[in-house]
Amino acid sequence: MLQIWALAGIPEIGAGTDLVEVIATAVAASDRPLRDGDIFVVTSKIVSKAEDRFVVADDREDAITSETVRVVATRTSPTGHTTRIVENRLGIVSAAAGVDASNTPEGTVLLLPVDPDASARELAAGLRDRLGARVGVLLSDTLGRAWRDGQTDHAIGAGGVRVFDDLRGSTDAQGRALAVTLPCVADELCAAADLVKGKAAGLPVAVVRGRPDLVGDLGLPGARTIPRTGERDMFRLGYDEAYAEGYAAGRAAAPPSR
Amino acid sequence: MLQIWALAGIPEIGAGTDLVEVIATAVAASDRPLRDGDIFVVTSKIVSKAEDRFVVADDREDAITSETVRVVATRTSPTGHTTRIVENRLGIVSAAAGVDASNTPEGTVLLLPVDPDASARELAAGLRDRLGARVGVLLSDTLGRAWRDGQTDHAIGAGGVRVFDDLRGSTDAQGRALAVTLPCVADELCAAADLVKGKAAGLPVAVVRGRPDLVGDLGLPGARTIPRTGERDMFRLGYDEAYAEGYAAGRAAAPPSR
Repeated sequence: MLQIWALAGIPEIGAGTDLVEVIATAVAASDRPLRDGDIFVVTSKIVSKAEDRFVVADDREDAITSETVRVVATRTSPTGHTTRIVENRLGIVSAAAGVDASNTPEGTVLLLPVDPDASARELAAGLRDRLGARVGVLLSDTLGRAWRDGQTDHAIGAGGVRVFDDLRGSTDAQGRALAVTLPCVADELCAAADLVKGKAAGLPVAVVRGRPDLVGDLGLPGARTIPRTGERDMFRLGYDEAYAEGYAAGRAAAPPSR
Repeated sequence: MLQIWALAGIPEIGAGTDLVEVIATAVAASDRPLRDGDIFVVTSKIVSKAEDRFVVADDREDAITSETVRVVATRTSPTGHTTRIVENRLGIVSAAAGVDASNTPEGTVLLLPVDPDASARELAAGLRDRLGARVGVLLSDTLGRAWRDGQTDHAIGAGGVRVFDDLRGSTDAQGRALAVTLPCVADELCAAADLVKGKAAGLPVAVVRGRPDLVGDLGLPGARTIPRTGERDMFRLGYDEAYAEGYAAGRAAAPPSR
């Protein structure tokens, strides 16, 4: 049995807010003391706010540009709005490089935490100490997907939680190897937590109970190990962009006219 | 509070097995009667088995070819194994067109249900009738993702469950429109259910309790509405394939040598 609930009573977070204190207080006010193996799924936005990742930006697009290490694809709609799919410095491919302009003060945008894995580990260490339970922490962000409409929440930071449930050594009921199976449980946990948090409800922290096997040392690999970048990425450019690169090369390679 | 549990006691499913009977029996044997708004997440593989979607195939690759309507990307590893990312007749982009060769009798593979939404609706209708509760049904499959390692479970069929939680008319805490937010709750529910089902454990059916707002008429749009195909898909070919198309066009467009 998996149980997932949102913590009530998390106040508006500002620069410098002690998230360990805020979350521990919310846990204490609830009727559910935490146990070893419980996993917090924390919307990365409140970590960004606590870490004062606000930047003044008249134009969200400028902020996206500065957070982008590589443009993957762009498309301009008939109304003139340009969607940019970009890779950010964490290797995460998304529609806005993690730059968030909703629920922020007018004239500001919010960037992702500098090092979400470090933030998650710090939060996990603080909460373990404060709550006396061996908990894990995931930081989540809402991402679109290739080939599928809509968004789901994904893990961008992990502290003391295994991000993959490595089944590659195990076998099916017929004894055959489950060769390629590597469930990204961190993404699944964040998706599950989104079902109780909601986008508009002011519930940025959820607790997942029931997979204590996924909680371990704070030195476990972080969510930085999830993005597939560089040569291993078969979709490193959009169709139009890859076609354009090929077209230019094809033109250049054609025998010169004399 | 969201509660998710796997149903114990689902036997091995064969061609012609009555899934309503099997699932209703497992529910009755559990100590948890179902309620209006509960959602079953059923691994699509058992639906395929019940619908006798086994095909004799010496070679899984041949079966993948026959289920493919469009090759998106291929890559051959140094060891000679070719990975094919393809679009199947349901519009789903995946590594093997949904062809499953694990946990099937030797010399056979298993195809996806012919119409997973129809199968989900039929199952939901049967279970509503049998259990006397207005339940929903999702069929799940394990899919890889662009840009991220590992797999997560996704919805490929839906009966009586809203697949998107449309927030596009709602506002954030500052009253600004949550313009582009369209959580794919069906995928999030399937991801959540995978956390209790496991790949090797023989638990193909989970129940999610706590989002009755997502359960509705059997006429709700199905999971067929999730895939983004055709012109709207910015990643309709892999980098290598799109580059090659562009290269050929660029060569052909170059001024002819005289």
